[in-house]
Amino acid sequence: MAKAKQKNPKIEKPTILITNDDGVTAPGIAALVEVAKQYGKVVVVAPDTPQSGMGHAITIGDPLRINSVNLFGPDVEAYQCSGTPVDCVKLAVDVILHKKPDYCFSGINHGSNASINVIYSGTMSAAMEAHIENIPAIGFSYMDYSFDADFSLAQQVANEAIHHMIHGIIPPNGLYNVNIPKIDPKKYKGLKVCRQAHAKYQEKFLERIDPHGKKYYWLTGEFKNLDKSKDTDVYALANNYASIVPVQYDLTDYQLMDKIKL
Amino acid sequence: MAKAKQKNPKIEKPTILITNDDGVTAPGIAALVEVAKQYGKVVVVAPDTPQSGMGHAITIGDPLRINSVNLFGPDVEAYQCSGTPVDCVKLAVDVILHKKPDYCFSGINHGSNASINVIYSGTMSAAMEAHIENIPAIGFSYMDYSFDADFSLAQQVANEAIHHMIHGIIPPNGLYNVNIPKIDPKKYKGLKVCRQAHAKYQEKFLERIDPHGKKYYWLTGEFKNLDKSKDTDVYALANNYASIVPVQYDLTDYQLMDKIKL
Repeated sequence: MAKAKQKNPKIEKPTILITNDDGVTAPGIAALVEVAKQYGKVVVVAPDTPQSGMGHAITIGDPLRINSVNLFGPDVEAYQCSGTPVDCVKLAVDVILHKKPDYCFSGINHGSNASINVIYSGTMSAAMEAHIENIPAIGFSYMDYSFDADFSLAQQVANEAIHHMIHGIIPPNGLYNVNIPKIDPKKYKGLKVCRQAHAKYQEKFLERIDPHGKKYYWLTGEFKNLDKSKDTDVYALANNYASIVPVQYDLTDYQLMDKIKL
Repeated sequence: MAKAKQKNPKIEKPTILITNDDGVTAPGIAALVEVAKQYGKVVVVAPDTPQSGMGHAITIGDPLRINSVNLFGPDVEAYQCSGTPVDCVKLAVDVILHKKPDYCFSGINHGSNASINVIYSGTMSAAMEAHIENIPAIGFSYMDYSFDADFSLAQQVANEAIHHMIHGIIPPNGLYNVNIPKIDPKKYKGLKVCRQAHAKYQEKFLERIDPHGKKYYWLTGEFKNLDKSKDTDVYALANNYASIVPVQYDLTDYQLMDKIKL
């Protein structure tokens, strides 16, 4: 009996944490769960409300709530949390799993997180939080914002990237930002290793007047690519590739550092 | 008359945008305004509620409000906004100033933003948003969380760093994360150029029960420095220096990128 209970690390399935920033009910996370289930035991811990654009926000001044949900079938343990995507990863490790999962996959985001979007993205920040904890992590984003988006190409690419990570084809100690173009799947050329394109948003706030005569503003903006090189994620996506950018969280500008003499 | 109206760029005062993440009423922002006033025309655009830990969050799903406040004396135009620190910078440029300010200084934050804190910090994300817009920017943080903190050493260091930026001693096209230790000002050794220390938080959620019998969780955590090198911000701060780390937003992990062959 004692023998039967013993764990065999070679045949035990890995634990895979799935999260996102669009919220636990978004179609994109269901699409990712479907792919990840083939590779291990999936546990979903995701925000209970949409958290797009939350960046690396954490909840300091408010308590957090966790509730079980049954959204992904009987084999998938799932929870919705009241916090941000980064809170979800922290709660998953410390309160829900009581251990680090073997992998963390975030997404599939409804909309691009290529280029400068990486710093605003809750999807990528959740994956980065896992990376800070030394959990192999990938964030997935599909360049279609619509609720009814067809995730079949995104699932194909997610499957490819997860396979590469689990089999060590991409170093599993890394963090990766994978973006998938909205194209006819027949035109898809493959996964291309890229750097983050230098780009920004040109903001334009819309001014409106509320029923009480007071002004309010909606953030809108246009994406401006300032980088015409062919080694960027933006270029790859415009040329029928999915992009994979290895990401790190040391923000030190070493080039500038060498120039300063105080 | 026409001549009198002509602008002389050499004598015109620079426009300095001041923001923070602790909110427009925090003592730290008043301390920074006092320093910055010596260098130009100060405009304050800061959150109307505390926004610590908001990272690079932006407000997408809600409209934003802007209200004038009179908190910094007759010479200082000031506004409080309903959004995040990053929203404040975007609103300042597009709606309030209708131009880019010459400088953006963020803080003085109540608490450290050294090392890994840079990615969670609203103070630094506001400064980074200015940097994305090519506005010379510095974030200031003082290692004392208390409301009643004595900001005199922090003001001395802020003055030193702002002087260095305005006089080109540190390249003005950069973004800088300045942290000030909580020490006897007599022991202060100067501003030291550093890299971001490799560190993380060891999370520990406190579980409590609400009056209705349901569980809720408070995020707490202990800072763990994993980096014993002497060229880091954490080392400088522990040795009576203020730290200045040049910061950038290209998150590409170039070393890892070179290792991947797909």
